[in-house]
Amino acid sequence: MSTSTRKVDLKTSEVPVEKQMLEHFFSPKSVAVIGASREKGKVGYDILKNILDAGFEGDVYPVNPKADEIAGLRCYPNVKDIPGEIDLAVYVLPAKLISGIVDDCAEKGIDSLVVISAGFKESGPEGARLEHALLEQTRGYGMRVIGPNCLGIISTSAKINATFAALTPAKGNIAFFSQSGALCTSILDWAAGQQIGFSKFVSLGNKMDVDEVDMLRALSEDDQTEVMLGYIEGVKDGAEFIRSAREATALKPVIVSKSGGTAAGARAASSHTGTLAGSETAFNAAFTQSGILRAKSMQELFDLALVFSYQGRISGSNVAVVTNAGGPGIIASDAIERSNLKMASFTRETIDKLRSGLPPTANVYNPVDVIGDAKADRYQLAMEEALGDPKVDAVLCILTPQAMTETDATAQAVAAAAAKYGKMVVTSFIGGPGVESGIELLAQASVPNFAFPERAIDALNGAYRYRQWVTKEHSQSKNLDVDREKVQSIFDEAKKIRRHELGETEAREVVTAYGFTVPRAILARTANEAADAAEDIGFPVVMKIASPDILHKSDIGGVRVNIGDRDEVIKVFHDITDRAENLMPDAEIQGISVQQMVKGGKEVILGCSRDPQFGPLIMFGLGGIYVEVLKDVSFRIAPLTVSDAETMVREIRSYPLLSGVRGEKPVDFHSITDSLLRLSQLVTDFPDILELDVNPLSVFPDNGGAIAIDARLRIEGD
Amino acid sequence: MSTSTRKVDLKTSEVPVEKQMLEHFFSPKSVAVIGASREKGKVGYDILKNILDAGFEGDVYPVNPKADEIAGLRCYPNVKDIPGEIDLAVYVLPAKLISGIVDDCAEKGIDSLVVISAGFKESGPEGARLEHALLEQTRGYGMRVIGPNCLGIISTSAKINATFAALTPAKGNIAFFSQSGALCTSILDWAAGQQIGFSKFVSLGNKMDVDEVDMLRALSEDDQTEVMLGYIEGVKDGAEFIRSAREATALKPVIVSKSGGTAAGARAASSHTGTLAGSETAFNAAFTQSGILRAKSMQELFDLALVFSYQGRISGSNVAVVTNAGGPGIIASDAIERSNLKMASFTRETIDKLRSGLPPTANVYNPVDVIGDAKADRYQLAMEEALGDPKVDAVLCILTPQAMTETDATAQAVAAAAAKYGKMVVTSFIGGPGVESGIELLAQASVPNFAFPERAIDALNGAYRYRQWVTKEHSQSKNLDVDREKVQSIFDEAKKIRRHELGETEAREVVTAYGFTVPRAILARTANEAADAAEDIGFPVVMKIASPDILHKSDIGGVRVNIGDRDEVIKVFHDITDRAENLMPDAEIQGISVQQMVKGGKEVILGCSRDPQFGPLIMFGLGGIYVEVLKDVSFRIAPLTVSDAETMVREIRSYPLLSGVRGEKPVDFHSITDSLLRLSQLVTDFPDILELDVNPLSVFPDNGGAIAIDARLRIEGD
Repeated sequence: MSTSTRKVDLKTSEVPVEKQMLEHFFSPKSVAVIGASREKGKVGYDILKNILDAGFEGDVYPVNPKADEIAGLRCYPNVKDIPGEIDLAVYVLPAKLISGIVDDCAEKGIDSLVVISAGFKESGPEGARLEHALLEQTRGYGMRVIGPNCLGIISTSAKINATFAALTPAKGNIAFFSQSGALCTSILDWAAGQQIGFSKFVSLGNKMDVDEVDMLRALSEDDQTEVMLGYIEGVKDGAEFIRSAREATALKPVIVSKSGGTAAGARAASSHTGTLAGSETAFNAAFTQSGILRAKSMQELFDLALVFSYQGRISGSNVAVVTNAGGPGIIASDAIERSNLKMASFTRETIDKLRSGLPPTANVYNPVDVIGDAKADRYQLAMEEALGDPKVDAVLCILTPQAMTETDATAQAVAAAAAKYGKMVVTSFIGGPGVESGIELLAQASVPNFAFPERAIDALNGAYRYRQWVTKEHSQSKNLDVDREKVQSIFDEAKKIRRHELGETEAREVVTAYGFTVPRAILARTANEAADAAEDIGFPVVMKIASPDILHKSDIGGVRVNIGDRDEVIKVFHDITDRAENLMPDAEIQGISVQQMVKGGKEVILGCSRDPQFGPLIMFGLGGIYVEVLKDVSFRIAPLTVSDAETMVREIRSYPLLSGVRGEKPVDFHSITDSLLRLSQLVTDFPDILELDVNPLSVFPDNGGAIAIDARLRIEGD
Repeated sequence: MSTSTRKVDLKTSEVPVEKQMLEHFFSPKSVAVIGASREKGKVGYDILKNILDAGFEGDVYPVNPKADEIAGLRCYPNVKDIPGEIDLAVYVLPAKLISGIVDDCAEKGIDSLVVISAGFKESGPEGARLEHALLEQTRGYGMRVIGPNCLGIISTSAKINATFAALTPAKGNIAFFSQSGALCTSILDWAAGQQIGFSKFVSLGNKMDVDEVDMLRALSEDDQTEVMLGYIEGVKDGAEFIRSAREATALKPVIVSKSGGTAAGARAASSHTGTLAGSETAFNAAFTQSGILRAKSMQELFDLALVFSYQGRISGSNVAVVTNAGGPGIIASDAIERSNLKMASFTRETIDKLRSGLPPTANVYNPVDVIGDAKADRYQLAMEEALGDPKVDAVLCILTPQAMTETDATAQAVAAAAAKYGKMVVTSFIGGPGVESGIELLAQASVPNFAFPERAIDALNGAYRYRQWVTKEHSQSKNLDVDREKVQSIFDEAKKIRRHELGETEAREVVTAYGFTVPRAILARTANEAADAAEDIGFPVVMKIASPDILHKSDIGGVRVNIGDRDEVIKVFHDITDRAENLMPDAEIQGISVQQMVKGGKEVILGCSRDPQFGPLIMFGLGGIYVEVLKDVSFRIAPLTVSDAETMVREIRSYPLLSGVRGEKPVDFHSITDSLLRLSQLVTDFPDILELDVNPLSVFPDNGGAIAIDARLRIEGD
């Protein structure tokens, strides 16, 4: 991943809260187009024309010192000359002129600005400086800005299309925001070929000010919006993103396509909008934890948009399939089995009615095969019975065009049944010209058609995944009883002496302050002290060199385990200290740490690293080869909720080794999740922790608890 | 998976070789339609009409005793009454009348019959009996049969459409065969909306006689066919399928969609065509081993068909992307990175030419971003430079419809560049009505367009996967030096006494005869003999109860390891024998097997089970939890080639544990593949082996070889 891109680092939180509203963008009463043009093909012309053509009912003011009138409207040399109030200004002049214009806008009292023009951060260091200055200037005025380097915005309820796109979309319930302007035009063009409408349509461009977090907040409260769709290449503030996404997904489905996930993609992303692409791991964790449906492909983004926009919510996981062709019925059954969905089991009553209404060769179980020669009446019967069955939550209707098939009448029957029962209905009329008119009729009735059964099932599954998220009990992150001051003082001390890698002794103290149990340990300065300590702790013991200067103790023979008696302790004491003095003569040696030898637990690893966009990324896995070789780990972003901690333990492949295989007892599950929550709280309380490993954490069977055998951490330098 | 379906078990090999040709189906000079009808909407009418409408130039004979003339053709009461020779007969009468008609056909010398009619195996036990009788009857006559229960067949080169589909496809280079007739009509309808043509189009129906193996063989030799497309729910003869698929894929790409993979899908499949769906594992292995491209979805089946049909073969893995939009460029880069493909690195020359020809804000590295305001000329330049670069094998051209975009002219420029350089070109013009005409122009020039970049990359990747298969060196299965007679005599002996579970002693002998090394072992009848044996073998030893009646020795304490001296041997001898006599008083106890104790190897498992469709399915994995808990195993169908054995060892996730992690030496890789090949030969030589486990096989570092610590096998009963 490229990290050479300069990151503009100004926090949204610097904007006063009362200024965060975006209603002047989406419901303006008046608009000024700064840089309006009479010349067709110029952006300043297209935008003005789009505003007028979309039927905007407020006042429109072209601004251009070289014209008196554009498109029949009076033109003003400067925004300050406009008589009325202006809610929204759209800027299409060259980047280098913007500073003066922003002053004018501020003077005029304009608080919302869309900057279409390119020539900012995306164009190189000079543009980045210009953008930084623009941000400071507009923040100073309390002015909100969409862009720069964007296609513009559309709000169908306000009948405003302030973009230079070739099309104005129909009014609808989808809100779309995108970091790529080009994608916006493709989506508008796609929507024009479907019965798809939008509430809001926002090209975010460089996201200098208004970003995905603002969009999630604004669209959550927007009555016209029932489903949010986003394309992002990165986020500016990971924690805010998760917070706003959680709030948004509690109300409406949010579907996001995130690109730049691979090294090649991230290179392309850097050269594109100068975004530092976050690691895929962190993004996947963020999406999982905030209930965002991540579209795996553009196809899926469009398909999910269609199903939510047309059909709203699904009521459960039980899907019935009605088909006139066995093969595609099998394909659909396979797809359902591989998804979170289930093949519905019909009630006795449904089966009886299907049997009496359909020909004897029909299959009356799910998938219902109405047979190749089915006309619309058989489809109607099957759809009605399937939808009427209380054990069915949604129906996929498949049609292949046979000689006798009544495509249009079948579409109408399916649409009527869907409307009557109010359950989710999707279709897969498979073919080309022979099914086109039927698909058109279905779309008019808001029944989404998918070219193939697998895509229809993927879409239903998306609807069900959203339902699982909404109906799940969302636990909170616990506030555990910890000794925060103690950790603060350890860090202060370490920083004072410019030590950023904290070795065993300090790391133990840190995790102990946050409630971890560590093996009993006594620092011995002499061999006799060590022998006494060992007797106190109980044999066998572990002995480790104690030195703040020796981080990799094992490498110099500074760790010995399974020491069974006094004599051996004394011998080992001299062995270790002699060796350390020889190998690292400059190291400060505090003595030998004599420790309890922990046996009989299963070893797991808890860790934390810091993602540049999302902050503390918590890792969990089984010790040894499971992490190192099999990469069998799970990730979540801190702070964790209880259910985050539980699912991250359960989702590793080797989880059965913890829950008990081959007659073993299960380990103390709660002690693992509790440890994860404590770790989460620690790294959340102390953002200066850059890396932290508890490795291994030894977990005991039943309710035996867990002991952190070793820990190390690294804190931020000056 | 349902196993209740009765399997018709007649082998293709019973058909004489000279009868296996299918040319009368695909290039007939005359056709009789038995059951031709004057009534529109009847199958007997539709088929006759399709034959005539498709422009068939040979003789057409309607057969129907109740009519004198149909569709202007003289009608005959019986095939025997037809004056000329008949190459092909199409049967559309009720199932129960078929026996007499087949006799008539045979008398008339007809050797190729398409049975459209349903009412056979798919309809229940009575139909299955009818089908079985039909098969015996036609085999007796040396008559080949397609169907029953099918849509019919199309051969565009012979201008014959002997189906009752509503459409006749254009002539083209795709051959399609399908177990689902309904899917055929959908594909025909889809093709009608694209510039897609077919060479052959075959609905296989119940596959009573002609099946996927016949199709692979016939289509391999068909000059009109450049790519084969198939939909199957199961195969009749797995070994033949793999053999014919290997031959076919050496010549042409074969893309297969296989459904019925999940339990639900398989249930649907059983109720559909009565096919016993093979396990997914076996199918995946079969596809991998025979070079078939498995389409993961119907979408992918169609997409791969398009790319091969339009663009033929890809020359390598280096892909360039040309786009007018950054976002979709990133999406494409991501998709390439996740595939087997690579992002091409341009030569210096290409970069210079792009830089001088494109505006300064354009990205001249891959992905080439010609910027949103690009007209056709910029696309032309970029396409020419990318295609002209020797380090580029294929180009994906992405277009999003912007205000200035010249969709049609761009399509023409892309098509011209594709034709000029002869490298593979695919496009993703993303949108709806705004890109339609461009896509049409591309299709006319055989440049395939995909709605989204990810699908375009998937298609390119399919082309590249095929290239990898074709260019790979295909090793053969070795013929190893083994003692086949020895194994035969062990099996004969076991069967004689009706023992089908072979325990340690016999299983050791079997694998030893096939070249496995086993631990040294001496059977001791007395404690003293045991002590002498242990001294001879060398301490420590393992001691096991030797009894043909005790299979699970450990369960009764019949196994002891790590026995260090004579005294302990004597004590353990009595311990084990006493215990066995107490717990299993009826067991014949032959003594104690004193064995070499094998230490220091890595334990792996080799196994074999028998798949109902594909036969011996060989498994490989690491011992213990890797197989049991993590299910980290690989499968191939025997006989294995050397490269099969090598890839199955390398493809398990835990392979790094064998190749050496944490400074460990790698294990003897060759000894594992050699063991797999020996196991493969054993189960191939002896089809009566139902299950065989070598568990564990202890593999030593470097060239240390491997020892089969334990083995067990089960052979077929009477």
